[in-house]
Amino acid sequence: MTARDPYLLTPGPATTSPETKAAMLRDWGSWDGDFKAITARVRARLLAVAEADDSYTCVPIQGSGTFAVEAALGTLVPRTGRALVLANGAYGKRAAETLARIGREYDLYTTDESTPPDPVEVDRILISDPSISHVLLVHCETTSGILNPLEPIARIVSARGRALILDAMSTFGALPIPTATLDLCAVIASANKCLEGVPGVGFVIARKSDLKAALGNAHSLSLDVADQWAYMEKTGQWRYTPPTHVIAALDTALDQHAAEGGTPGRGARYSANHRAIVDGLRGLGIEPLIPDALQSPIIVTFRCPDDPNFAFQPFYDRLKAEGFIIYPGKMTAAETFRIGCLGVLTPQIMGDVVSAVARVLDDLGVAHRRAA
Amino acid sequence: MTARDPYLLTPGPATTSPETKAAMLRDWGSWDGDFKAITARVRARLLAVAEADDSYTCVPIQGSGTFAVEAALGTLVPRTGRALVLANGAYGKRAAETLARIGREYDLYTTDESTPPDPVEVDRILISDPSISHVLLVHCETTSGILNPLEPIARIVSARGRALILDAMSTFGALPIPTATLDLCAVIASANKCLEGVPGVGFVIARKSDLKAALGNAHSLSLDVADQWAYMEKTGQWRYTPPTHVIAALDTALDQHAAEGGTPGRGARYSANHRAIVDGLRGLGIEPLIPDALQSPIIVTFRCPDDPNFAFQPFYDRLKAEGFIIYPGKMTAAETFRIGCLGVLTPQIMGDVVSAVARVLDDLGVAHRRAA
Repeated sequence: MTARDPYLLTPGPATTSPETKAAMLRDWGSWDGDFKAITARVRARLLAVAEADDSYTCVPIQGSGTFAVEAALGTLVPRTGRALVLANGAYGKRAAETLARIGREYDLYTTDESTPPDPVEVDRILISDPSISHVLLVHCETTSGILNPLEPIARIVSARGRALILDAMSTFGALPIPTATLDLCAVIASANKCLEGVPGVGFVIARKSDLKAALGNAHSLSLDVADQWAYMEKTGQWRYTPPTHVIAALDTALDQHAAEGGTPGRGARYSANHRAIVDGLRGLGIEPLIPDALQSPIIVTFRCPDDPNFAFQPFYDRLKAEGFIIYPGKMTAAETFRIGCLGVLTPQIMGDVVSAVARVLDDLGVAHRRAA
Repeated sequence: MTARDPYLLTPGPATTSPETKAAMLRDWGSWDGDFKAITARVRARLLAVAEADDSYTCVPIQGSGTFAVEAALGTLVPRTGRALVLANGAYGKRAAETLARIGREYDLYTTDESTPPDPVEVDRILISDPSISHVLLVHCETTSGILNPLEPIARIVSARGRALILDAMSTFGALPIPTATLDLCAVIASANKCLEGVPGVGFVIARKSDLKAALGNAHSLSLDVADQWAYMEKTGQWRYTPPTHVIAALDTALDQHAAEGGTPGRGARYSANHRAIVDGLRGLGIEPLIPDALQSPIIVTFRCPDDPNFAFQPFYDRLKAEGFIIYPGKMTAAETFRIGCLGVLTPQIMGDVVSAVARVLDDLGVAHRRAA
C-alpha cells in the first residue's frame, strides 16, 4: 500500500488538485452575496469554455451528470417533439431510457460500441422522418472511450433545421466544443470530469430563447432547466439548496483550467497522458480496443490479457495497493478494463501506472511482453 | 469584518465542523470498495437515527432536499393515488407544486403560516375522501419555524389505513422521528441541516416492500427511489455518480452526531441555542412571530423592529461584517427575519449574536430595549 491516496484512473470522479479540495474548507450561505458571486462567475466561465455567445446561458443543475441530461431532455424536447438518439454505448442507451421514462417520443440509431454513427445515415433519417425535432449525440462514449463525430453531425442537424443536444460529459474542458459555431441546441456536462472539479453538479448550456419557450415543459420540478434559469436570472440564487462546497471547488478548478491554457492546454496534457498509457501498455502487449483514429484522449478501453491467470478483481486490488484505482470495462463484446487519462494526471504518472501493471501481471503470473 | 469565516445562522446549509469539511480533502473512486463501505455505513446510520426497523431502508438521492422530496412523491404515490398535502408554508406549497408538475392528484389542506394543521380536520378529510392514499406532512415548516404535530397526525393517518410521507428536512437528527413506531411510509431529509453535513445529498427512508411495489412508478429516471434502491442493494454502488466528497463529509458528521449523544444530545444543544437567541433578542424587544408552544428549536422567525430606520439589507450586511449571516423572512403576513439554531452553534455564540444585533441596531439608529 502506498503512503499517498490512490490516483483515480477512472472516467471520473477524477483525482482533483489539493487546491480544489481545499476550496471546500469553507461554509457558504447559499443566499449570501458572496456565494451568488461565485455562482455567477462559474456560469460565465463555463459559457466561455463552451465557446457560446450571448444568446446562450449556462444553467447548473444539482446532482450527477445524468440528472443534467434528464433535465435537458425533459426541458428542451417538447411533449410533442421527437428525439433521435445516436447510441453506441451505455450513455446513449441511458438517454433513450430517460426519454422513455419521461414520456418523450424517440427513435434510436444504434451502432456497434466501436463504430461511430455515420453522418450520412443521420442525414437520411432526418430527411425520412420530419417529426424528429431533436438529436442526442454523446461526444465521447465513456463505455468504450470512442470519440463520436461532433462536427459533421452538428452541420447536418443544423442544415436540416433540427436541434442537436450534445452530451459532452467526458470531453467538456479538454476537447473544443464550438457551441455557437456549430449551432448546438444544448451542451451538457458535469464538474467532475475534464474540468477536474468534484462531483455533485452538472450544467446545461442552452439558448435563452429556447429556455424561455420551454418554461412549463419539464416533467419534473427539480430537473426543470428553464425554471432554474428564470429564477437564477431574477435572484442570482439557486431555486433549491445548491451544493455550495462543490460549486466553490468548481470555481477553483476553473482557475486551474484557465491557468493551464484552457481547453487546448488541458487537452494537450490529456493527449500526452493518453499517448503514455497506450504506448506503455502496448509495450506490455495490452492493446486498446478502439482503433487509434476513433479513440478519445479521455478514457481508453483495453482488452484484458488472454491468459488463464488473469482476472479483473485481483488485478484491480493489486493495482490499488500500488496506488492506482482503475475502472472495469463496460463493453458487451469483450473482456476489458478502462483507464482514464483525466484528472491531475501527467505522462510521468501514466508511466508509473505502466510499471505497476507490469509488476502486478508478474505477481499474478500473467505472461506479458517486456517494455522496450 | 471579523477574521474568522462568518457563522451561518440560516436554515441550512449550516456551519459545519472543521473535521466534517476536512473529510472532503480526499478523492474517492465511486466504484471502489472503500467508497461502497462509506455508502453502506451512512445508509445504516441514517436508518438508526430514524428509529426505523429492518422493514425499512435508506436510499440516498443526489441533489438538494427538494430533489429527495420529489423523488419520494414520484416514486411512492402511485399514478392512480391521491395525496393530501398539509400546507402551512412554502415547503408544503412546494410539495403540492411538485405533485402538480409530476402528474399526481392531490388535495391541499392549508392553514395559516402560524397555525398547525388540526389532526381532527385531517381525520375528517381522510374519512370523507377514501381516494386519498398518501398524506404529506412537513415536520418543521422552515418558512416560519413552526413545529407541526407529527405524532397525532401519524396516528390518525395510520388508523385510517393511509400512508404518511414526512418531510423531516429541518428536524432529522435533532428531534426524535420514531419512524417504525409511528408507522411512517417515508421520511425525507438531507445532509446539510441538523445532521451538520454539507449540501449535495438528500435521502428517503421507506419500507422495502413499498419500494419493491413502486418499481417503474416514478416519473423520472434520476429521481427514482425504487430503482436507486434496487441497484444499490445489488451492487453496493450508486446508479449515477455520487457526490463522493459530500458523502464522506456526511459520514464524518454522523460520527459527531453520535458523539454528541445522537438526536437527544443534538436536540438539547439546539434547544439551548434557541433559548439563548429568543431570550436575548426579546431582551432587545425583538419578538418571535410564532408562540413558544408551537415553535421548533431549529429556526426562529422574528418580527423586524417597527422603526423607520430599520431595513433588512443594511441590518444583514452589518451583522455579516460582525461575523454572522442571518436569513431573510419568508412569511407573507409580516416583515420578518430568521435565525437558525442549527450547525456547530452554541448558546455562547448565540449570546454573541445578540450582542452584535444590539450594536448593529445602535449603528443604524434603531431604537431598542437594553438587555437586562
